[in-house]
Amino acid sequence: MSKKIILTEKDMPKAWYNIQADLPKPLPPVIHPGTGKPIGPDDLAPLFPMSLIMQEVSQERWIDIPEPIQDVYKIWRPSPLVRAERWEKALDTPAKIYFKWEGQSPPGSHKPNTSVAQAFFNKEAGVKRITTETGAGQWGSALAFACNLFNIECKVYMVRISYDQKPYRRLMMETWGAKCIPSPSTETAAGQAILAENPDSPGSLGIAISEAVEEAAKRDDTKYALGSVLNHVMLHQTVLGLETKKQMEIAGDYPDIIIGCAGGGSNFAGLMLPFARDKIVDGKKIKILGVEPCACPTMTRGLYRYDFGDTACTTPLLKMHTLGHAFIPAPIHAGGLRYHGMAPIICHLLELGIIEAEAYHQNACFDAAISFSRAEGHIMAPETSHAVKAAMDAALECKKTGESKVILFNASGHGHFDMSSYQKYFENALEDYEYPEEELKKALKTLPNIDA
Amino acid sequence: MSKKIILTEKDMPKAWYNIQADLPKPLPPVIHPGTGKPIGPDDLAPLFPMSLIMQEVSQERWIDIPEPIQDVYKIWRPSPLVRAERWEKALDTPAKIYFKWEGQSPPGSHKPNTSVAQAFFNKEAGVKRITTETGAGQWGSALAFACNLFNIECKVYMVRISYDQKPYRRLMMETWGAKCIPSPSTETAAGQAILAENPDSPGSLGIAISEAVEEAAKRDDTKYALGSVLNHVMLHQTVLGLETKKQMEIAGDYPDIIIGCAGGGSNFAGLMLPFARDKIVDGKKIKILGVEPCACPTMTRGLYRYDFGDTACTTPLLKMHTLGHAFIPAPIHAGGLRYHGMAPIICHLLELGIIEAEAYHQNACFDAAISFSRAEGHIMAPETSHAVKAAMDAALECKKTGESKVILFNASGHGHFDMSSYQKYFENALEDYEYPEEELKKALKTLPNIDA
Repeated sequence: MSKKIILTEKDMPKAWYNIQADLPKPLPPVIHPGTGKPIGPDDLAPLFPMSLIMQEVSQERWIDIPEPIQDVYKIWRPSPLVRAERWEKALDTPAKIYFKWEGQSPPGSHKPNTSVAQAFFNKEAGVKRITTETGAGQWGSALAFACNLFNIECKVYMVRISYDQKPYRRLMMETWGAKCIPSPSTETAAGQAILAENPDSPGSLGIAISEAVEEAAKRDDTKYALGSVLNHVMLHQTVLGLETKKQMEIAGDYPDIIIGCAGGGSNFAGLMLPFARDKIVDGKKIKILGVEPCACPTMTRGLYRYDFGDTACTTPLLKMHTLGHAFIPAPIHAGGLRYHGMAPIICHLLELGIIEAEAYHQNACFDAAISFSRAEGHIMAPETSHAVKAAMDAALECKKTGESKVILFNASGHGHFDMSSYQKYFENALEDYEYPEEELKKALKTLPNIDA
Repeated sequence: MSKKIILTEKDMPKAWYNIQADLPKPLPPVIHPGTGKPIGPDDLAPLFPMSLIMQEVSQERWIDIPEPIQDVYKIWRPSPLVRAERWEKALDTPAKIYFKWEGQSPPGSHKPNTSVAQAFFNKEAGVKRITTETGAGQWGSALAFACNLFNIECKVYMVRISYDQKPYRRLMMETWGAKCIPSPSTETAAGQAILAENPDSPGSLGIAISEAVEEAAKRDDTKYALGSVLNHVMLHQTVLGLETKKQMEIAGDYPDIIIGCAGGGSNFAGLMLPFARDKIVDGKKIKILGVEPCACPTMTRGLYRYDFGDTACTTPLLKMHTLGHAFIPAPIHAGGLRYHGMAPIICHLLELGIIEAEAYHQNACFDAAISFSRAEGHIMAPETSHAVKAAMDAALECKKTGESKVILFNASGHGHFDMSSYQKYFENALEDYEYPEEELKKALKTLPNIDA
């Protein structure tokens, strides 16, 4: 029953995989909002160390993982790949279901795969302080964890609604020595402007990014770190997909369907990019599916346009599926899936038809997560429950057709800090939000006029 | 840096180790409170299936682990043994520190090592329902997890103060389909009696045991499960110590000092019993140290006497270190360490001088846990922080003496559901309670007159 495929530390990847080397068409350039022209590395230098900027644009297929990063990865990596035989039996499906279990890291998700790398490269560049934003707190705690290990000061702007709803994530950050404040805050011009308009603003990732970026741009000793969206983040996350490839080989299987939930896209990308290469280069037939909430349907209903990464319009312009940078998300419980944009790499692969996307309502996702927990034990984060739901649907489809497909999904994080969401679910108090069409029309008008 | 020693599933123990086969003196018998005579297996039959009763009194050295139990263990076992090199460096100690990391189980602690075994043997005996008590919720959630996998109904009486303070543990139990109610409750005579006297009773483990036992004794379809104290619980927990022995061998080290926190004693026993055998049989020199709170100093200040396991005086009498069955603990945050008694096996080894005990105040334990988390990442449960503190003291003693001792401790569970305790600690709002001498004198008068 339910078998773990365990790698040794010796089997851990020594290099990250960079999909940019294998794309059939290059990524659209990042655009400077002032000039309308592609930005150069120097434009990003106030925010990131040059090593990360170089990774952002690198066309090299493999980028070595420095040993100090590998050393920290070993605190929880390699992570198990699990054949979910108990769940297969419960679902009565001929499908084989595998999940990659990323919930064993100290912060409880895949996020430290990149936070540790970012902290290291910042340390190497002599950076003393890092600011960031966080939604549900997964990323903020992952960066706090990493900064502490490399002796860097860490300040986290946490979306206010999550700050109030999930005090324990903040305490986790403080346990690792970080400072966490609610956003919008009075500490930045961006935060002050939002508060002037709406003192009760629940905040959003877009606002929190504006605040963290503003502080980093203002202070010489401070850089900024982003937990998703950017190319170097996707790169670092491939460590989990590369492990999974080895583990699938050991299991003697190859996935027909690969699934990940997607907010900014990093856990989904981390798992699927090494397999996407097989699809692009070797013509492998794989369905690669990103899953998002109906309340924040970036990939399934958003526009593929240039947009700002933040609400205050301070970041460079990224070509991505977007609901508009002014997007204020409905209060669904998958806090990590409430971002208005999506990783340009993901959006590009979507446009090229290499990957697909689907949206689900949150109650159906919690249903699936409960079914999974009762079979396999682990309690999933609300974000992860979206991947669980898609895996369940694929398995039930196999039951109908009698096919024994191999389904692989990323169990990106545990739900230990999200039990209040489970409480609402048990009390039938969770609403299913559909993103309104008129909001999308409004958003369209706010987009910078680059693509036209 | 900080290296994990990982076993494969093939290396997992196939049998539990029973210390009773190697004790230099047999355990004192369990006494029937009515007759004052040793009880027989039939006296326990209303509460436990006969297979577990036989394990309770078995003198066999090795007891096979049935395959369905091994199968469930594989959801999270074998667990890692970690050389804490980062923490050694932070403490600047010549000592080598190893910790066994039991926080990766779905309920987050070592508890499912026995809950899974107990659920299996109950299922095999045709039991349909199990009742139990829980303090902080670690045990209740572990039994909920196990009962769900073996399709047994599970009802948990949770100590009211924890039920109110830690709602997320209850939600975890509900996620796995169990029912959890606060104790004292109106559902049992024992609960009603306590509430009649004090409607605001915060509850205690002793009271919750009375309620769970009463319900199991009353109903034919229902048995009772205990998460610690009893011999068969200690037996099941040896799976973790047996794994550790293999892992220490792979690491090429052998412990000079073995440390576990002790409430009822099960995680401490699980780790140390296989090593205690080396001490008894082969004369190995090991310091084996159980750690408890100053607020509940069962081993360090309790009386070694026959006492009831519960408040309502319904259980058989166990010879153990006790603070008296009427003990109401101070509200320290290590909810799992607030039991008035201690496992008879632990107490017997203490009397024989094979193991030792020490008590710590909770603020010092949180200090140590923070030091550990900032070096090794993982956030410890308040219970576990007691073992962390003792390991830190041993390592700092080595720093003084220059000795390079090998220190091994059990990292018995994570603190994800205890962050409110960390909050109080950060706010300097944690009180250090000393158990008052006059309470002990009062307790003495309530003990049954068996030893005299």
